[in-house]
Amino acid sequence: MAELTVGLLLYPAFEVLDMAGPIEVLNVLSVYMGKSLQLYVIAATMEPVSPGPIEPGPSSSFAGQQLYMPTHTLDNAPALDLLIVPGGPGSNNKEALQPSLDFIRNVYCGYQGHPPAKYLFSVCSGSLMFAWAGVLDGQRATTNKSFWTFITSNGPKTHWVAKARWVASGNIWTTSGVTAGIDGMLALVSSIWGEDTAEKVSATIEHNRATQSDDDPWAEKYDCQDVPAVAG
Amino acid sequence: MAELTVGLLLYPAFEVLDMAGPIEVLNVLSVYMGKSLQLYVIAATMEPVSPGPIEPGPSSSFAGQQLYMPTHTLDNAPALDLLIVPGGPGSNNKEALQPSLDFIRNVYCGYQGHPPAKYLFSVCSGSLMFAWAGVLDGQRATTNKSFWTFITSNGPKTHWVAKARWVASGNIWTTSGVTAGIDGMLALVSSIWGEDTAEKVSATIEHNRATQSDDDPWAEKYDCQDVPAVAG
Repeated sequence: MAELTVGLLLYPAFEVLDMAGPIEVLNVLSVYMGKSLQLYVIAATMEPVSPGPIEPGPSSSFAGQQLYMPTHTLDNAPALDLLIVPGGPGSNNKEALQPSLDFIRNVYCGYQGHPPAKYLFSVCSGSLMFAWAGVLDGQRATTNKSFWTFITSNGPKTHWVAKARWVASGNIWTTSGVTAGIDGMLALVSSIWGEDTAEKVSATIEHNRATQSDDDPWAEKYDCQDVPAVAG
Repeated sequence: MAELTVGLLLYPAFEVLDMAGPIEVLNVLSVYMGKSLQLYVIAATMEPVSPGPIEPGPSSSFAGQQLYMPTHTLDNAPALDLLIVPGGPGSNNKEALQPSLDFIRNVYCGYQGHPPAKYLFSVCSGSLMFAWAGVLDGQRATTNKSFWTFITSNGPKTHWVAKARWVASGNIWTTSGVTAGIDGMLALVSSIWGEDTAEKVSATIEHNRATQSDDDPWAEKYDCQDVPAVAG
């Protein structure tokens, strides 16, 4: 039995570093520090998933050539301890993502006889998908600062924290833009395995880490303020 | 014609964030800022390449499930402006990597009628492969700090700079451990497209960037000193 089963939810036009930041942290735990972790890559179909743009354009060739292979679909994903949802250009495609949003809700609540996941973790605009899935209602959360107004307005029942590299609220971890996913996952590792372990991982990847959740210069740079939840 | 053609050289057991850091920087340039970039993913064969360990072990299941699809092999790779080589556990497998080392040398010198690449860029222990390929002879370089003695001893004709997040020497860019690849690629972007562009990319990914090449706390933490080149 793995110490932690991890599901990575992918969809077209995800952001590559949103995915790789948290996965690298867990890889180091697995490969260099001997923790027994199990990764499942989950997508709508078993076709390769590309971080390229949804609409091919003149510069689409760049990102479009990296392909990630799912191990499971939304319908046959195994029980998960931790679900990771990256952001990216594709995350605002609400209609097309509805099956993935249902999946997030199911993982949060428990489904097909599986217990609820212990942790949900989003990077960047992955929190938009969490908001649409309804799992952020009544919670505190953060998201990337460059789309602050758009994303927070799509989660009216959530208290959005602006000056936050990450927010842990209940069992839901949301992180800020892209590289914040590295800091947030190190914080989650610290909460599970202790700060010494998190520091060892951070030193292994030579990451100049934000160790405090409010150690975030980007809220001010993008002039973002907290957005309280709307009652009801 | 793309403004920059980029080759990403993959091999078994590469480090996932070594790959994704620089690629994310270039993705943002391509997807959000409209630069026309072309990415080729190059490997020994067209089989998917896994960042998992070479020797499957008890915790190998984690990293082993991510697969990246090559677009070209070492034998038919197109002309490149920029070659990116990630590090990782697989990078010290010298014998098995010999065709990849030959490829690096060829890209550096020009081959099959292609001109030499404008830039070579390594992350972490990717510099070990550069050293073995001979392209660091007479150059200054850096590498990850946790394998400092091993890697520097494998590049006796190179001046190894300890306190360096990255080193640009001639047209060869070497970066320090894992996340240094983000800072190094932002520095390369700055040198090609200007500092404003690099800052925009850094802000988009909310990266707490090291803007100076010697802004590296890890040399001291790992007690690493410069290693001068041995004459001859």
